[in-house]
Amino acid sequence: MAKVAAIIGGGVIGGGWAARFLLNGWDVRVFDPDPEAPRKLGEVLANARASLPALSDVPLPPEGRLSFCGTITEAVEGADYIQESVSERLELKHRVFAQIQQVAPATPVGSSTSGFKPSELQQGAANPATIFVAHPFNPVYLLPLAEVVPSPASDPALIERAKETLRSIGMFPLHVRKEIDAHIADRFLEAVWREALWLVKDGIATTEEIDEAIRMGFGLRWGQMGLFETYRIAGGEAGMKHFLAQFGPCLTWPWTKLMDVPEFNDELVDLIAGQSDAQSGAHTIRELERIRDGNLIGFLRVLKDRDWGAGRVLKAHDERLRQAMPAPSPQTAQPIEMAHMRVLPGWIDYNGHMTESRYLFAASETSDAFLRLIGSDLDYVAGGHSYYTAETHIMHLGEAKLGDALTGSVQVLHADEKRLHIFIRIARAGEDVATAEQMLLHVDMAAGRTCPAAPEVLARLMPIAEAHKALPRPAAAGRHVGQRKA
Amino acid sequence: MAKVAAIIGGGVIGGGWAARFLLNGWDVRVFDPDPEAPRKLGEVLANARASLPALSDVPLPPEGRLSFCGTITEAVEGADYIQESVSERLELKHRVFAQIQQVAPATPVGSSTSGFKPSELQQGAANPATIFVAHPFNPVYLLPLAEVVPSPASDPALIERAKETLRSIGMFPLHVRKEIDAHIADRFLEAVWREALWLVKDGIATTEEIDEAIRMGFGLRWGQMGLFETYRIAGGEAGMKHFLAQFGPCLTWPWTKLMDVPEFNDELVDLIAGQSDAQSGAHTIRELERIRDGNLIGFLRVLKDRDWGAGRVLKAHDERLRQAMPAPSPQTAQPIEMAHMRVLPGWIDYNGHMTESRYLFAASETSDAFLRLIGSDLDYVAGGHSYYTAETHIMHLGEAKLGDALTGSVQVLHADEKRLHIFIRIARAGEDVATAEQMLLHVDMAAGRTCPAAPEVLARLMPIAEAHKALPRPAAAGRHVGQRKA
Repeated sequence: MAKVAAIIGGGVIGGGWAARFLLNGWDVRVFDPDPEAPRKLGEVLANARASLPALSDVPLPPEGRLSFCGTITEAVEGADYIQESVSERLELKHRVFAQIQQVAPATPVGSSTSGFKPSELQQGAANPATIFVAHPFNPVYLLPLAEVVPSPASDPALIERAKETLRSIGMFPLHVRKEIDAHIADRFLEAVWREALWLVKDGIATTEEIDEAIRMGFGLRWGQMGLFETYRIAGGEAGMKHFLAQFGPCLTWPWTKLMDVPEFNDELVDLIAGQSDAQSGAHTIRELERIRDGNLIGFLRVLKDRDWGAGRVLKAHDERLRQAMPAPSPQTAQPIEMAHMRVLPGWIDYNGHMTESRYLFAASETSDAFLRLIGSDLDYVAGGHSYYTAETHIMHLGEAKLGDALTGSVQVLHADEKRLHIFIRIARAGEDVATAEQMLLHVDMAAGRTCPAAPEVLARLMPIAEAHKALPRPAAAGRHVGQRKA
Repeated sequence: MAKVAAIIGGGVIGGGWAARFLLNGWDVRVFDPDPEAPRKLGEVLANARASLPALSDVPLPPEGRLSFCGTITEAVEGADYIQESVSERLELKHRVFAQIQQVAPATPVGSSTSGFKPSELQQGAANPATIFVAHPFNPVYLLPLAEVVPSPASDPALIERAKETLRSIGMFPLHVRKEIDAHIADRFLEAVWREALWLVKDGIATTEEIDEAIRMGFGLRWGQMGLFETYRIAGGEAGMKHFLAQFGPCLTWPWTKLMDVPEFNDELVDLIAGQSDAQSGAHTIRELERIRDGNLIGFLRVLKDRDWGAGRVLKAHDERLRQAMPAPSPQTAQPIEMAHMRVLPGWIDYNGHMTESRYLFAASETSDAFLRLIGSDLDYVAGGHSYYTAETHIMHLGEAKLGDALTGSVQVLHADEKRLHIFIRIARAGEDVATAEQMLLHVDMAAGRTCPAAPEVLARLMPIAEAHKALPRPAAAGRHVGQRKA
C-alpha cells in the first residue's frame, strides 16, 4: 500500500513537496485554507509532471493519489510523513504543530522554514522531538537539496528515518550539524541579495547586468562544484593553502558596503521592480518557470551522465526504483519478448521524437535481457567472457513519442559456438517502430579474441535457435543501407 | 593574416586568455619571466584544446601560432590586442603599462585585475585612454563572462572595439557602467566567501557541506538565471513587487555576521585546508580541472540547445565562425570532421566499455553537426522541415574507453534533393572505432512525407557531395550484417 504524506500549506513550496511525493508513488493529503489552493497546486504539479520524469532512466512508480482535506487533523491522521510549509509566522507554525500533534504525536514533521531554528519551532510542542527543519529549494520537484536541521531536543533515530524518506523521493538531505539562523544556503543568498541591492541602488548595475554577471560566470561553476572546490582548483598545483594565502588578506580590504544595509523604501522597490520588468517582462512567470525547469533538467542530466554532484543523487534514485520494478516474464514459442519500456522525456529530441540513438538503446536493453536469459549475465562477464556486438543494421519504421509503451523482442536468425545473429523488433501496440539486426561474437575478454561460449550458455541458446528456424526470415534481414525494396 | 594578441603574464588566467585567442585563430605572443611559464601555459592550453572545441558546432579556425617573448616590447609590438594578467600589485602593473605604451601607445590594453579600478590602473600612464579592465573568470577558455570596466578617461570607441574583440573569441563582455572596487561579480563572491569562513570557523558546516549546500540547490539555478530573475519567479503570479514586499523586511534581521570579518589566522587556514583535503583530496587538481571542464561543457551545451543565457553567446559565436568559414570547394575533398567528443562516465557499461548505443549517439552528434553545417538547424526544423534517418548500418571496429577523445567525420556517399547517404567514422587518434552508414530522407514534417530540401540547404550540401565523389568508397558501405569480408 502506498505511503501517505501530509502537506500543510499548499503554495509554491508545499505544492513542490506534494508533486515530489506524488510522482514517487506516495499518496498525498493537502491542507490549505486558501480556496485557490487546488488551482495553484495543480499548476505546480503540471510543471512537475512535465519535468521530474525526465530525470529518470527507469519508469517512476504509478503516481499516488492527491486529496485536499478540510482540516489539519484529517490530513495528518495516519500519515507516514508530514511537511509544513505555511507562512513564516512563528505563532502560526506553533498552532499548526499543536493541531498536528493532537492526532499524530509520533510522526516526523518537517518544516520548510528558512527563517526559524528548530528549537524555536519546537517551543511549547507536545512532542518537540519529532519537529525539525527540512528546508527545500524552489523548484522543490527538481532541486535535490533539503537542509535537515535538528535541535538538541530532536530524536536522532527519527531524523535518520526522515532523511531516508527524503532520499526515497529523490532528494539530497544535508544534515546541518548546528542550528543557526537561516541554516546554511540562505546565509549566502542573503549576503548576495544585500550586495545586489546596493549595486542597483547606487546605479552601478541593473538587475539584468547583475544576473548576467552571475550566470555567465561563477553561477555556472556553482552548479557543479561549490565555493571551496572551485577555489581549490584556482589555487592550482600549490593547492588550497596557497589560494588562502593569496585571497585571505583581501578580506580586510574596504571592498564592500556590507557593514550596513540599504534602506528598503518604495523608491528602491520601484527601481528594482522596473528593471526586472525590463529584463524579464517579455516572458510570463509560467513561461519563465518552464524555461528554468528545462534548463535545470539539462544540467541535472549532464551531471547524471557524468556521475557527479546532484547527478549522483539521481543515479542512486534510479537504482532504488529499478530494484522495486517487477521482472519481465519471457515466453519461448515465438520471437521472445524480452523488454518492456516506456519512452521517457529524456529520450525525446527537439523535434518531439525519440532520439535516434535511443532506438539502439532500446534494442540493447532487449539483447542484454536475452543474454541474461541464456546465462551470459554479470557473473559470466566477471568470469572473463562476454558477447560483443560486431555489427548492427537499424531500420526506422515509425516514430515513438513521449510516454509510448514499447516492447523489445528477439528472433534468433543463426547461432553457433561463437556467433549469435539476432533480429530485434521494437514495437508499439504490436507495430514495429524500429528493427535491429545484430551480429554478436562470443569473446574471451582478456585475450581479446573470439572463443566458444560456455556449455551451459549454449545449452540454453541452441534450443531457442533451433525453434526459431521455423520462423519466417524477416524481410529486413540481410539488407544493406539504401537497398531498394524487393 | 592572423591577428595578434599579446599576453603579459602567462599563469592560469593569462594562459586561459592565450588559449581562447589561439583556438579562435589568433597568433599569440606571451611574455612571462617565470621559466616554468611555457610548461604551465601548455597545461592550460591542453585543457582548453580538450574542451573549448566541444562547445562549437562548426569547426574552429586553424589554431594560431604561439610564441614566447623575452621582453614586453617584443610581445606587444604590432599586436592588435594586449591583455595584462600579472600579479595584483599596482606598481607592477604601472611598470608593465609604461613598457607597453613605449611601443604600443594606441593598442587596447585589457587588465585581468579583480582588485583595481581602471582609474587606478591608468594613473601616470602615457595614454590612459587605452587602458581598461577586462576581468575574466576561471576557466577563461570556457566561461564567457568578461567584465569590461572603463573609467571616465577611457576612449569609448576603443572600448567598443575591445568588446567586439572579446565577442570574436566567444566571450560575453559585460560593460560595467561605473567603476567600483571589485567590479560586480567579485563583490558577490567576496560576500559569500566571508560568510563561508564564519560557518567553517564556528563549526556550523564543513567545506564539503557548504559546497553541497551550493551545488545541490541555488548553484544550479544561478547557472541559467541570475538572482533577480530567479526571485521574480519565486514571487509567483504576484510578481517582483510581491516578492520584494515579502523578502525586504528580512534584510534587517540579525541573520548574519557580516558586520565584521573573521580573523584570518593559521588556525583558520589549517581548518579549511584540512577539510578541503578530506572533501576533494581523492582527485588531483588536474583531475578536478578536467571534471569541472566536462561539467561546464555539458551545462553550456544544454543552454546552447535551449538558446538561453550563456548558450546564446555560443550560438552567436558559431554564427560568426560559420560566416567566416571558406565555402567547401572541390579542392578540399576530405571527409569533414564535424564532432569532437570525450567518452564520459555515463557512456560506460558494466564491461568497462562504451555502451553500444553510445556509438550511434556519437554518430548522431556527428550527423546533427553536419546537418547544422548545411543549414538544417533548429530554425529550419521550426519551419517544418527536417532530415529523418531511415536506416543505419554500424560496424564496431574497436573499443572506446573512459576518457577517450573521439572525432566524428562525415563522408557524403550520395545526395540528391530528397536523399542524403552518408558514411560516418568515429575515430580515436585517427583509428576508426566504429563506422555508421546512414540514409537520411528530407521530410515535410506536417505532411509526414519526403520532399525536396530548401534551395539554401542544397546550395551548401551539393558542392560537398560533388567534392566527395573523388573520395574512395568505404569498404563497409553497402555491406549487410554477417556479410563475409571481400
